[in-house]
Amino acid sequence: MQIKDIGEAGLLQRIFPFCLEGTVGDDGAILQMPPDRSLVVTTDVLVDKVHFSDRTTSPADIGWRAAAANLSDLAAMGATPLGITVGLSLPETTEVAWVEELYGGLRDCLSQYQTGIIGGDLCRSNTITVAITALGAVDPAQAIRRDRAQAGGAIVATGDHGKSRGGLELLLNPDSGKSLSEVDRQTLILAHQRPLPRLDVLPILRELRSPWIAGMDSSDGLLDAISQICRASGVGAIVENLPIAPALSRLRADPQDWVLTGGEDFELVLCLPMDIARILVDRLGEGAAIVGYTTADRSLIWRRADGDIDLERGYRSFQHF
Amino acid sequence: MQIKDIGEAGLLQRIFPFCLEGTVGDDGAILQMPPDRSLVVTTDVLVDKVHFSDRTTSPADIGWRAAAANLSDLAAMGATPLGITVGLSLPETTEVAWVEELYGGLRDCLSQYQTGIIGGDLCRSNTITVAITALGAVDPAQAIRRDRAQAGGAIVATGDHGKSRGGLELLLNPDSGKSLSEVDRQTLILAHQRPLPRLDVLPILRELRSPWIAGMDSSDGLLDAISQICRASGVGAIVENLPIAPALSRLRADPQDWVLTGGEDFELVLCLPMDIARILVDRLGEGAAIVGYTTADRSLIWRRADGDIDLERGYRSFQHF
Repeated sequence: MQIKDIGEAGLLQRIFPFCLEGTVGDDGAILQMPPDRSLVVTTDVLVDKVHFSDRTTSPADIGWRAAAANLSDLAAMGATPLGITVGLSLPETTEVAWVEELYGGLRDCLSQYQTGIIGGDLCRSNTITVAITALGAVDPAQAIRRDRAQAGGAIVATGDHGKSRGGLELLLNPDSGKSLSEVDRQTLILAHQRPLPRLDVLPILRELRSPWIAGMDSSDGLLDAISQICRASGVGAIVENLPIAPALSRLRADPQDWVLTGGEDFELVLCLPMDIARILVDRLGEGAAIVGYTTADRSLIWRRADGDIDLERGYRSFQHF
Repeated sequence: MQIKDIGEAGLLQRIFPFCLEGTVGDDGAILQMPPDRSLVVTTDVLVDKVHFSDRTTSPADIGWRAAAANLSDLAAMGATPLGITVGLSLPETTEVAWVEELYGGLRDCLSQYQTGIIGGDLCRSNTITVAITALGAVDPAQAIRRDRAQAGGAIVATGDHGKSRGGLELLLNPDSGKSLSEVDRQTLILAHQRPLPRLDVLPILRELRSPWIAGMDSSDGLLDAISQICRASGVGAIVENLPIAPALSRLRADPQDWVLTGGEDFELVLCLPMDIARILVDRLGEGAAIVGYTTADRSLIWRRADGDIDLERGYRSFQHF
């Protein structure tokens, strides 16, 4: 059954059950704001053949990843999610089941974080496009911005990087992972298909009450995040320690490029005082690490056993155009 | 100069000046909420060749109309705008000037209503798609919903309907308006290219303190709005009076179908007690009218001099698929 067989009204009826009760059906959704909180808003657009492909991603996984990417942006601002809107454009020959699976994936990811779909729009297009806006609430005193890093602070990655890129490789070239165990394969593929936004980090940060903090998520890669924080804050960085997930080092002899620029791991990259960073990494476990520290000059250095590499010259992060 | 000549970073630099200061450049925008207000969220997606066309609409007009459509949804909920996010996908061969004009149109419309662009996303696609989410704030006691109409109330249209459809006709078939004066032509074309969302109605409604109110905007046509309010509220309606803009009646001998189903006039259709409706129409002027009243049965009747027409059988409103 295709969309053209049931029309817009029929499709809406099938989508409503995936949305939070009482929010859809009017010109807009009405949400209560928690008192004394600021609103955080973030938007992401995913396009067929650019951000996802039937070859590597089921509609449920597209939904999950789209929700995860947006929740990750909220986490990066220190915000608790209030809900998302979904603007979906697609050909009228799309299977209705495809749309339902997409919304199922969105809902499944969101419900893990006690939030859901609160509205959206549907329309016809030659290209499937999923435009998501996520809304969150933050105590303005605890919002995390990019431009607040100070020199001499620690740079923390909240978990393993490069695993999503490894999972993508296994999906694109299944032969490349022949020597891997099934557990390793699944670890990497799940990191790509079902990333977990790090909203779990926020309560820990609130407890630690860092005197200053800067951060963003690593959706465009670990290096991109470090570089953006440094540029916005007017500091430099020395990266000394790139922890590598065991499964990843078994897939690729030298996986450090994927760790730096693979992208889509949806971890947080945080910059904060060294003593607090140590407690944070200890509390987080599983791949979380102090990957380097900020410096007063503006260069971005990767300090390896065989010498320093200027990261801004040697690597380029993902560019959308 | 095309997008591929300046890349994503170059394009972002050109777009930032069109955004509200201090909101863009992080993973999300942070907005202060006015105290004791609920958040209203609405999303609209516009697709090239479906919702707009180079033939009838300049990029500045696409931007204006996209902003107007979203502000109209906020007005329909009784909400004051806080800002919009723009998710734009487009081919890398798009002219940079096209993108700047689009953002100029968005900003020009928004600034008329003391609001602006607070964030967004850019990405590559074969099809130009503009996904907008608008945010607003409403006193929860004064939110306007569709499902609150009572029988025996008046149905008010806040201004002329059908003018946008008339303007579109003049753009598609310039010969059709040969007998019109230049003022008439411009009235209709402007109604299509530069619609004005009716946020100006909200302060009047707040003053009138209606004991009950239901409403939505008429983006999909006057008939669609009446029909949706009635269905959501479990009432019927008799439409008796379809005011027709003089310019429209000079373009088309029998323009009532355009008045009912033309769409994209972005007026408000409100249902409220008759005595308050009379004061409201008096205050609004310019095309505002009581177009009919609600009834206890569920039928939708157009009462004409030559007899009743069952509107749900005789007309179909705009369907997106």
